[in-house]
Amino acid sequence: MRNNRFIVIVGCGRLGSHLANHLSRAGNSVVVIDRDEPTFNELSPDFSGFRVHGDATQMDVLKGAKINKADVLIATTHEDNVNLMVAQVARKIFGVPHVLARVFDPKREEVYVQLGIDTICPTSVASEMFLRAVANGATEREGAQS
Amino acid sequence: MRNNRFIVIVGCGRLGSHLANHLSRAGNSVVVIDRDEPTFNELSPDFSGFRVHGDATQMDVLKGAKINKADVLIATTHEDNVNLMVAQVARKIFGVPHVLARVFDPKREEVYVQLGIDTICPTSVASEMFLRAVANGATEREGAQS
Repeated sequence: MRNNRFIVIVGCGRLGSHLANHLSRAGNSVVVIDRDEPTFNELSPDFSGFRVHGDATQMDVLKGAKINKADVLIATTHEDNVNLMVAQVARKIFGVPHVLARVFDPKREEVYVQLGIDTICPTSVASEMFLRAVANGATEREGAQS
Repeated sequence: MRNNRFIVIVGCGRLGSHLANHLSRAGNSVVVIDRDEPTFNELSPDFSGFRVHGDATQMDVLKGAKINKADVLIATTHEDNVNLMVAQVARKIFGVPHVLARVFDPKREEVYVQLGIDTICPTSVASEMFLRAVANGATEREGAQS
């Protein structure tokens, strides 16, 4: 609802940078952490937040991103272990009120739930959408063939 | 609707294998193609379809999977270029009536649409879900902190 929150995003890949651009544009204060500096190029020119170059599994990197002041943390890296660790530290040690994590292996979702972390599994979501699309059957524009 | 279709799935990773297991269990004839044989271990013991080991960008591999008889083709690999090529060949050369592809780079979606291919972009879908979750604000179970 309110758009002036302090949001820390871990990982500046396609998903992380998209979220950072969108949430910054919406008026939030955004900090993006990535250990790979060139990924910051994915941020749009009007991104008004901070870039923190470093490994978010390191406590001092998280502190440098002012995680202790964060309203929201989103872990978006490509590694479930990294996301789980960062999310857990944010929640348990720094008491970040709202923590979300991307999770690739659906089997891990239960662990997150027990830790009070919201999860989104792109594979599960995509899978449901594919199954729905197959069930509905589309394309079939035979005329489109050459 | 009908569950006795002939479905070719390219890529037996997390998404491909999940779809293969589900669609096979639902009564469809499923063929899965992957160039990496160990990925077939992701298939469940009751998967009743065929495994084709090979590179789906090779015409003879697609022919070996009987793509000419397919009602549906789903390209699920981790490479947009592979998915685009396979989907295009399926649609244009073999006239597969319903072709779906996973696409990582949303900028490519337009090309697919012009080719009459249904696309699903897990990053876009996940991104929307994260933004909705952030907007709604959840967790906030301060009591869950230790």
